[in-house]
This record gives sequence, C-alpha cells and structure tokens, in this order.
Amino acid sequence: MARIVMKFGGTSVADLDRIRRVADLVEGEARAGHEVAVVVSAMSGETNRLVAFVDALDGDLVGGDNKTRGDAIDDEYDAIVSSGEQVTSGLLAIALRRRGLKARSWLGWQIPLKTDMAHGKARIEAIDNELLDTSMSSGNIAVVAGFQGIAADGRISTLGRGGSDTSAVALAVALKADRCDIYTDVDGIYTTDPRIVLEARRLKRIAFEEMLELASLGAKVLQVRSVELAMNNNLPIRVLTSFAEDGADNPGTLVCHEDETMEERVVSGVAYSRDEAQITILRLADKPGMVAKICKTMSDANVIVDMIVQSISKAESAANLTFTVGKRDLDKALAALEAVKDEIGFEGITSDSNVTKVSIVGIGMRSHTGVAQTMFEALAERGINVEVIATSEIKISVLINAEYTELAVRALHSAFELEVA
Amino acid sequence: MARIVMKFGGTSVADLDRIRRVADLVEGEARAGHEVAVVVSAMSGETNRLVAFVDALDGDLVGGDNKTRGDAIDDEYDAIVSSGEQVTSGLLAIALRRRGLKARSWLGWQIPLKTDMAHGKARIEAIDNELLDTSMSSGNIAVVAGFQGIAADGRISTLGRGGSDTSAVALAVALKADRCDIYTDVDGIYTTDPRIVLEARRLKRIAFEEMLELASLGAKVLQVRSVELAMNNNLPIRVLTSFAEDGADNPGTLVCHEDETMEERVVSGVAYSRDEAQITILRLADKPGMVAKICKTMSDANVIVDMIVQSISKAESAANLTFTVGKRDLDKALAALEAVKDEIGFEGITSDSNVTKVSIVGIGMRSHTGVAQTMFEALAERGINVEVIATSEIKISVLINAEYTELAVRALHSAFELEVA
Repeated sequence: MARIVMKFGGTSVADLDRIRRVADLVEGEARAGHEVAVVVSAMSGETNRLVAFVDALDGDLVGGDNKTRGDAIDDEYDAIVSSGEQVTSGLLAIALRRRGLKARSWLGWQIPLKTDMAHGKARIEAIDNELLDTSMSSGNIAVVAGFQGIAADGRISTLGRGGSDTSAVALAVALKADRCDIYTDVDGIYTTDPRIVLEARRLKRIAFEEMLELASLGAKVLQVRSVELAMNNNLPIRVLTSFAEDGADNPGTLVCHEDETMEERVVSGVAYSRDEAQITILRLADKPGMVAKICKTMSDANVIVDMIVQSISKAESAANLTFTVGKRDLDKALAALEAVKDEIGFEGITSDSNVTKVSIVGIGMRSHTGVAQTMFEALAERGINVEVIATSEIKISVLINAEYTELAVRALHSAFELEVA
Repeated sequence: MARIVMKFGGTSVADLDRIRRVADLVEGEARAGHEVAVVVSAMSGETNRLVAFVDALDGDLVGGDNKTRGDAIDDEYDAIVSSGEQVTSGLLAIALRRRGLKARSWLGWQIPLKTDMAHGKARIEAIDNELLDTSMSSGNIAVVAGFQGIAADGRISTLGRGGSDTSAVALAVALKADRCDIYTDVDGIYTTDPRIVLEARRLKRIAFEEMLELASLGAKVLQVRSVELAMNNNLPIRVLTSFAEDGADNPGTLVCHEDETMEERVVSGVAYSRDEAQITILRLADKPGMVAKICKTMSDANVIVDMIVQSISKAESAANLTFTVGKRDLDKALAALEAVKDEIGFEGITSDSNVTKVSIVGIGMRSHTGVAQTMFEALAERGINVEVIATSEIKISVLINAEYTELAVRALHSAFELEVA
C-alpha cells in the first residue's frame, strides 16, 4: 500500500463529466489499496470569472482623493477566488461517495495549511497534517482544495496562479507520500510546444533543475515553486493526463533528480515566452552605479527585470542599456523611468513589446561545449537576429522579434535533434 | 451613534452594479457615524447554480448496491453552496474600500458563528462576537457572509434557504444592535401579494406573531426562524428595498411587538401557498390510535403533515382522513402509506396536488368575533369550495382548488377592507 497525492488542474475538473472522470481515476487508486489525497483546482474559467469581478470593483474610482485605486485588497481577493477550489473539492467528495468510497473535502484553513501574510501570492510555512492523517488512516480519501491556505491573520490566503501544484507537492511532502501525480490536459512534459513543432516528443524523465528552468521560461505545465519544493524534498512528480482513455497507456513524464541516462542528453527542451517586453535606455551616463540605479528604480516600482545587457561606447562615456520586463509591467516601468530621467541622466528610452524569449535547457550543457555555437548558427541560418542573450549553467535564452518565434523554436528543436528519442 | 445590522438579499447583490448600490447604502449609514455590520446573500442565481451541481452528482448511481443515492452529503453541500456568500462578502468589502471606508469580510467560521451539526439546515447555537466587536470598534465595517456557520466538526454549515435573514437577526442580537434592516427587492410587507391584488397596501408596522404566521404561510419576504429569533429577543426588524432611488422615501415595514394601533386591525394580511398537496385516506378503521399511526408513518418518512381533518361516519366504524403535505414530499408520502396499508388497515388513498392554502392573519382576531363567518361568506359568494380548514389564535387557513387561488385572495382582501389604510 502506498500513499499517493493526486492533483487535478482546472481543465481536468472543467465540468461535472470531467469531475466524474476524475472520480474514476481516484477510485482506481483507492480500490488498488492506496491511501489517497487529492488536490483540485477550480473548474476552468471559474478563477478568471471571479478575478474579473474583483478587477471591476477594484477599478472603481469613487469620490475624493483618499479613494484611489491600489489600496490593498489582496485579503479580499483571496477570500473571493479561493471559493473556486472550495466548490470543486466538495463536488469531487460527493462524486467519490456516490462510488461507495469514503471521502471528505478539506479547505486550506481546515487542515490547516499555514502560509505567510503575503495575500495573493502567499508562501506555505507549515502544514499541520494531524487531522488529515487521522482522517486518511480511517479510510477517508482527502479531497483538498488547492491554491489556498490560512494566514496568521486568520484569513484565507492564496498561493498565486498555478498554486494548486504547490499545494499538491507540499501536501505530498507533509504526508510523506510515495508519489505525487499531477494530472493535467497534456500527457507529459514535451521537448517543446507540440502546437509549434509537430515532432515534439514527450520526455520519459526530466531533472528537477531542467523542469525548473522550463517552468520559469514559459512552459506552463507546472508552477515554478512546486518544482523547487519537490526538488528540495526529493519528491518525484509524475505529470500525466486526465484525458486518457480507460486502460490506455499513460506513463506521463517523471520529474526527478538527474540520473545517468539523462546526462547523455545535451539539451532537453526548447521553451519560449511571449510575455516579455524590451526596454532600451539610450546614452546612459557611463559612470559607476548607473545600472544599479536603474535596477533600483524598477525594484521600487515592483517591476522584475529579467535579461539585461549593456553596450558601452567608451569614446562617448555613454552606453545603451537594454533589459526585459514582463509585458504587463511595461507601462509601469516606462513611467518610473521617465520620472528619474533627469536625476539619473540619459537621453531617451525606447521600448518594444513585440519580442519573444526563446530558450534551450539541458543539464548536459554543463559538460558539453559547442552548445551556444550550435544555437546561434541555427538562428543565423534562418536570418533571425538576436537582441539580448542570457545564460545560466543549464540554459541559454535569446530575445528575438516575435514574428520569428515559431521559426526559431523549430530551428532549435531540429538543431539539437530533440525529435529523436 | 447607533449600531446597525444591514442585510441584503440575493437580488440586492445580483451583479456588480447592484453591489455598488449596496455599497452606497452602507456608506450612507457609516458616514452618518453609525457602526455597521452588513450581512449578504449570494448573488441571485448563484446558489441555484451550485445546488444544481450538487444535485447532478448526488443523483449518480454508480456501480454496486452500497452506492445508492441518499448517502449523506449535506456536509459537502454546505461547503459548496456557502461559497456564494463568501464571494459576495469579499466583493462588497472591496467596493466599500474603494469608497474610502475601512471594511473587511467575515466568513461564518472566522467569526465564529457556531451551529449544531444539522448540515444543510443548521441552527445557530452561539456567536462569539469578540473578534467582530474589536474589528468594528476600530472603525471597520464588518461584511458578513450570510447563511453560513461552523459546526462542531469544524466544517462549514448552512442555515437552510433564506438563512441569511437568520444570520442577520442573530448577529444583531449578539452585537446588541439598535436596528436590523433587511433590504430586499420589495419595499415592505404587504397586505397580500401585489401581483394578485393591485390594491395591496404596504403595512407600516406588523406584529412579530403576524409576520411569523405570514412567513410560515408562504409570504417569502423573511425566513420564519429569523422572525422567531427577533421576536424572542425583542429586536425590531425593518423590511425595506435596496432598489429605491437616491433620496426617495423608503420607510419599509417595521416588524415589532404589537402595540395599540395594531389591535384596531382585525386582519393584517392574506397569504397563500401553492406548495401544498392533499392526501385522503379512505375508510380508515375508526379505532383509537389510527391517526397517530398515520402521523408516525409520515414522521418516519421525514414528511411534515400540516392541515389535518377527519370525517367520521359512525355507522360504518370507518372514517376518511384528509391532510396536507409539502408538494415535493407527495410521492414519498404516498409510498410510505402504501407500505403500511395492510398493517394499519384502510381501503385506499387519493391525492391531489392541484390545491392552494389561503390564509388570513391578524392579531386582532383574538378579540374579534365573526372573522371566520366573514371569510367563509366571501368564499361561498364566489362559489369557492373549502376542502380543509385549519385555525390558530391569529389565523384561519383553508385549502381550496388551485384554480381559485387569485379569486380567493382578492375576495378575502376586499372582504376585510385591507386596501384601506
């Protein structure tokens, strides 16, 4: 008998028939004699519906100057959007009881799953799993509302979009589960987006570090923090589909610590993100501390800076500084920069949100040379101009004109022969 | 400065614009210097949407004989349907903050509002209002999710349909509020349904006892238990509309203890209920205890018996027994009776769900004679046949063919001159 955590995302519980299908899958594991905890997301579309309500009211500007937009409402946001998972967990518990199984739903505050006070993007601090343990040991399937916890103020907190993955992994760690199975609408982790590259191949295994880079770089199958948490606790995650036919082979992809077989691969996947925008600061004074000042300006405006490159022209004691920010932060970033233009001293700003970040990821890059060369040759052959480059030990990212996104992804997938198992 | 509880029903918070309107009304009381607690229902239609989910899954018959419909799921029903009020309370808190007011939402378990374990129709046992008090004393408007509490099992409980009225009254009692204002989509309590009688008149005041009878008899403005609770604690309730134009006169109806002005009225209102069904047991043996046995059969089947009349025919030592049950319980009641037919001994059963209960209510009936005569004459003049009669100190109810509903209501409204202030 094993202890298993199963997690089902929004598309897997999108309607009553999908919830019945999930109940079938849970029943299969329970009838096989396993102790099961299930973590569910909100029915797909539900979180967006609730967020739209919040945004509409939050956007109201009513009356005098003490009533400006932006007053903290994250605590209420959490109380509202967490209701989506609350509904799904109750419905799945009912579906399981109708299959003759013992089951009950658990909300974050009932477990309790304790988080910090960062409403809207809280981090898990502790899971007191005594009540859960007792309930599961007496034969109950635990159906846990994902994405939510309780903060020290006694109020509901949420873990940020995709947070149900993190709920599942944290729960698996707390319950000392043997496995954490993340059910989604794709049957595993692919070498790249199959909508762009028809030959994209499902990986049998992928290392935590690679998955972490892929998740950070725009592959949206798993939330970044869930991968970190699994890696830190050496908990293998299996990513598989809830849409497989009954009895069909559904091995998914195992996300685990690297092993020998993995190291033979140089590059495991190609990721891309369209959520970037590029900002160039023209003729920034070439004095020590200027880049730090720009970064502080962005940090003060709560904008995260990603890729960054400086092109120095010594002759003029001035340089162009180029960096990327999230596309939705662009306006905020530009306004913040304009406000400090005179203080810091630069000639102007240009920006471009028609850019894409394309990345290759692989733990094999640590011990192989020539990877960057292969990458840039493949792009150059297609006439794709690289604006910015960023690297880490196991990834290389480039910023390119968004029009070339698919071409670049296909070129890199082919250059590293990812279609070959 | 007064302490006020304001309650808004589903149509009053039906969409974001209605919620903004509610925020305006709450702002008005808060800016007038009052301490305000607001109780909200789910956005109209939301509870029905959630109940439909529950019913669909609850109706599944999957697999073997231990998986029959009817296993208790009320705990999960509560977890699911309570989410509707959770959403509204958060949204209203945001709308209030955008008006520059301090506000926060409260869920039943956060207060805590403690109930018994009767999930789906729980009764309030205690409200620990210490946290609420502290929050309100520091200037926060408390926005409370109605309809919900927490049971001793640590799970969410709900108070039954219309339970937000009871939440509001119980909260007003616990908070020692000066007033409890119930905002709805009608501007008060009427002498009868204005959709049937154009001359129906809004009452300025109505006694608790009368309101209790009217609520029990089918007038759906207030939940019965909320009236009981207000009566037992001598808390005046004002029923008024949230749909009035800004600045318009909106006095509503005050529900309070009877006073001299009220006693001048003989009859205060005419109510009707189409939710009845009539059952007649033919030729029941005329022996002691037979009626008790029928009542026990109904009670065991969890069916509530309302009006009851026996027509004895001494010559034959047998009698016909007629009574009414809720229309939706009719099939269940008939099945239970068929099962005991031989044991109890009767010839047959007839039933009729095409009936309506019409009632007149008034505390003045205690001290006036001739009320019943006026009622039956008015009905007889229109050729309306009375099937069953039931009376209490302050009401007379008759069961009639449903086709005559409107005619009977108009005849009684006119006979007691209710259109005259």
